[in-house]
Amino acid sequence: MTRWLNEEEQRTWRAFLHASRALWDTLDRELQRDAGMPHAYYEILVRLSEASDRRLRMSDLAEATSSSRSRLSHAVARLEEYGWVRREDCPTDRRGQLAVLTDAGFRVLEAAAHGHVEGVRTHLFDQLTPEQVAQLREISEAMLDHLDSGRHLY
Amino acid sequence: MTRWLNEEEQRTWRAFLHASRALWDTLDRELQRDAGMPHAYYEILVRLSEASDRRLRMSDLAEATSSSRSRLSHAVARLEEYGWVRREDCPTDRRGQLAVLTDAGFRVLEAAAHGHVEGVRTHLFDQLTPEQVAQLREISEAMLDHLDSGRHLY
Repeated sequence: MTRWLNEEEQRTWRAFLHASRALWDTLDRELQRDAGMPHAYYEILVRLSEASDRRLRMSDLAEATSSSRSRLSHAVARLEEYGWVRREDCPTDRRGQLAVLTDAGFRVLEAAAHGHVEGVRTHLFDQLTPEQVAQLREISEAMLDHLDSGRHLY
Repeated sequence: MTRWLNEEEQRTWRAFLHASRALWDTLDRELQRDAGMPHAYYEILVRLSEASDRRLRMSDLAEATSSSRSRLSHAVARLEEYGWVRREDCPTDRRGQLAVLTDAGFRVLEAAAHGHVEGVRTHLFDQLTPEQVAQLREISEAMLDHLDSGRHLY
């Protein structure tokens, strides 16, 4: 028996669907315009910049960016062409590879971060009250708890 | 002067980023598995099913699905191949085109809707309290008010 959405739930669902899509599209377009990269590339550079020695195993980087291995490989290949990332063999695992943020990549990330953070603030945080920011975090964490625990199903 | 995110905002932002991505990925994968279509196609069929005579101008359909004209044209071309949608010339506008939901498309949508709505309920509404559902709607509407009003900037 399908548990259909009532009118209230339907409106909530559509508002959430369109708001989050409009937010991603806007941030992605701004990053592309100002820094020449989509948000997925930006996120890879951020994760590498935070890792010790600015390097991560490809498998850990895929996990950190919620990306499939094939999608990540494709993105890292492009970032290598730009000179922002390079790949190295993993010293502790013969079949593993590391992605390393280059100095050029770090500088590009630093330059991109200003505009992107300003965008996140303008399009998200500036629109919400402090209570709503706290609510959004709790809502997001409740969703993540459930979705992460269901990963083994796929 | 860049208004960097503080630690609290950073955590909120990352939780929201990952929760919404995990939700879309999960729902998209379920629709693909159970109904053989991505969420973008499902949404096109829904919008057509709700329109009078189950038909919409392509420009209105692009607007309703927050899609670019080129992305929508590509999707509708695929849906035509499946026999779920057909295109017709617009009687009131010589340069316009209508997308029309076929009977086959309507049946496919009906069959897909059960599983998809159950997925939305399982992965979103079942994880939230009634208060959080109301909060999520207000947060989404605040974001939409801002983002929609900024559309002319692009």
